[in-house]
Amino acid sequence: MPGIAYLNGHFLPLEEAKISIEDRGVQFGDGVYEVIRVYHGVPFRLHDHFLRFERSAQAISLPCPLSNTEWEALIREGIARNHCDEGKVYIQVTRGVAPRDHCFPDSVCPTLMMTFRNMAEVDVSLQWQGVHAITLPDLRWARCSVKSLNLLPNILAKQAANEAGAFEAILVKDGLVTEGATSNVCLVKQGGIVTPFLSDQLLSGVTRAIVLELARKHGIAVEERAVREEELSQADELFLVGTTIEVLPVTQLNGVPVGVRMPGAVVQEIGEAFRHCVRSETG
Amino acid sequence: MPGIAYLNGHFLPLEEAKISIEDRGVQFGDGVYEVIRVYHGVPFRLHDHFLRFERSAQAISLPCPLSNTEWEALIREGIARNHCDEGKVYIQVTRGVAPRDHCFPDSVCPTLMMTFRNMAEVDVSLQWQGVHAITLPDLRWARCSVKSLNLLPNILAKQAANEAGAFEAILVKDGLVTEGATSNVCLVKQGGIVTPFLSDQLLSGVTRAIVLELARKHGIAVEERAVREEELSQADELFLVGTTIEVLPVTQLNGVPVGVRMPGAVVQEIGEAFRHCVRSETG
Repeated sequence: MPGIAYLNGHFLPLEEAKISIEDRGVQFGDGVYEVIRVYHGVPFRLHDHFLRFERSAQAISLPCPLSNTEWEALIREGIARNHCDEGKVYIQVTRGVAPRDHCFPDSVCPTLMMTFRNMAEVDVSLQWQGVHAITLPDLRWARCSVKSLNLLPNILAKQAANEAGAFEAILVKDGLVTEGATSNVCLVKQGGIVTPFLSDQLLSGVTRAIVLELARKHGIAVEERAVREEELSQADELFLVGTTIEVLPVTQLNGVPVGVRMPGAVVQEIGEAFRHCVRSETG
Repeated sequence: MPGIAYLNGHFLPLEEAKISIEDRGVQFGDGVYEVIRVYHGVPFRLHDHFLRFERSAQAISLPCPLSNTEWEALIREGIARNHCDEGKVYIQVTRGVAPRDHCFPDSVCPTLMMTFRNMAEVDVSLQWQGVHAITLPDLRWARCSVKSLNLLPNILAKQAANEAGAFEAILVKDGLVTEGATSNVCLVKQGGIVTPFLSDQLLSGVTRAIVLELARKHGIAVEERAVREEELSQADELFLVGTTIEVLPVTQLNGVPVGVRMPGAVVQEIGEAFRHCVRSETG
């Protein structure tokens, strides 16, 4: 079902939602985005996504003409129009259409767009069996905390993982783990969770924050610190967190099994706590 | 004059040239581009641009369905349709339209687009008076040799220069000069030209290659090597090279005059040699 998209004030069939080839999103990747998960017709942690959306937009001096209240109304309308009970909402703002010039154009209207897509709940067997990952050099720019449209290094890394038979590429910069191509990365060591601290090098994941909060509530120690590459293979457990994948154990890294049993006790506990959190907020 | 654009097999008014909001160029910056200068109705150094276009596309495993001969015919047709005697051609290929997923989609058609824009010849007084530049940290990714659509750090740097009253931002990574936000950078020391050697950190500029070739022909020494940031302010002359700016002296760096006289003897000689080269190939 291709569905109904939103573009600059109007809902319209996705196949009719088109923008100028001189949109700055097309020629420069001059924009920011968010992906929001919908459970039981309810957008999950919308406010967290709005906060990050605003931070991303501010970081590139991109004005957004809609308030969060207006966005929220449009998101809920789009969910209803698309009968999107289990799915994801993609929202994007670019700086707008202008003759190609690197400098910001004067008095241009930002381009606002949204798509709505149904998706199956995360395969529970995947959550139990886990996925494979590889490590790759992190080739990205120095402001990965901004959720921008400049995603070429991410797609190249994800594609390389895919071609290697893996689900995700875990990125490493100067010997330190940053994040996955499409997820944040957590390790379990001696029963506690270890994850790279927030910096310009990685995205402040909405699911990451929820998982760390849940872990602390469950009495699981959380360390946010620099994580060396070699700690990945020495971890008792390894898992990925993200909006669409939720909490996903990694059972093999670069072809070698991770930890001693699969899935590990901590990722099981955290995964269940996360699903409980989702149910309590959207059920 | 908005002009006639080219999009996926058709010439059409620029305002009608629109692509899906699910084009991978829009959501990921998953594409590559070239800007080609037109003098007297003739696209300048087309073959050099094609070579780089192919290298960029190969670097991101992007197939291009048109041969250089087909591109050339379309470029010449677009130049004629737009009466683009003095101008620039923008060509871009993206991986095409597909539901948003980082991995490459199966069997998708690349999106091909071109715009044609008239532009005045470079202001000769600017070439004599020179421009101001600032230095900024190079925040870009680790494959700047690829002319990709991921240009957010470039536009932010160019905008910062603009807001500082400068024409260009010269980017510095780990203490070494890489290139300008929209140009390559050359220094003059003891009568010879020094410029950063080609690497993953900078674009292999078409104008850069022409300028270095002309310099050697004129008996001017050329050194392609690592250039430390502090060498910029110690240079006898400093200049920028690029397709649309040609050869442009920098007379002030971070608010401080560069060299002893403006424009310097070497940049004058190279600028004249470049304009002679253009006339001989397009006149």
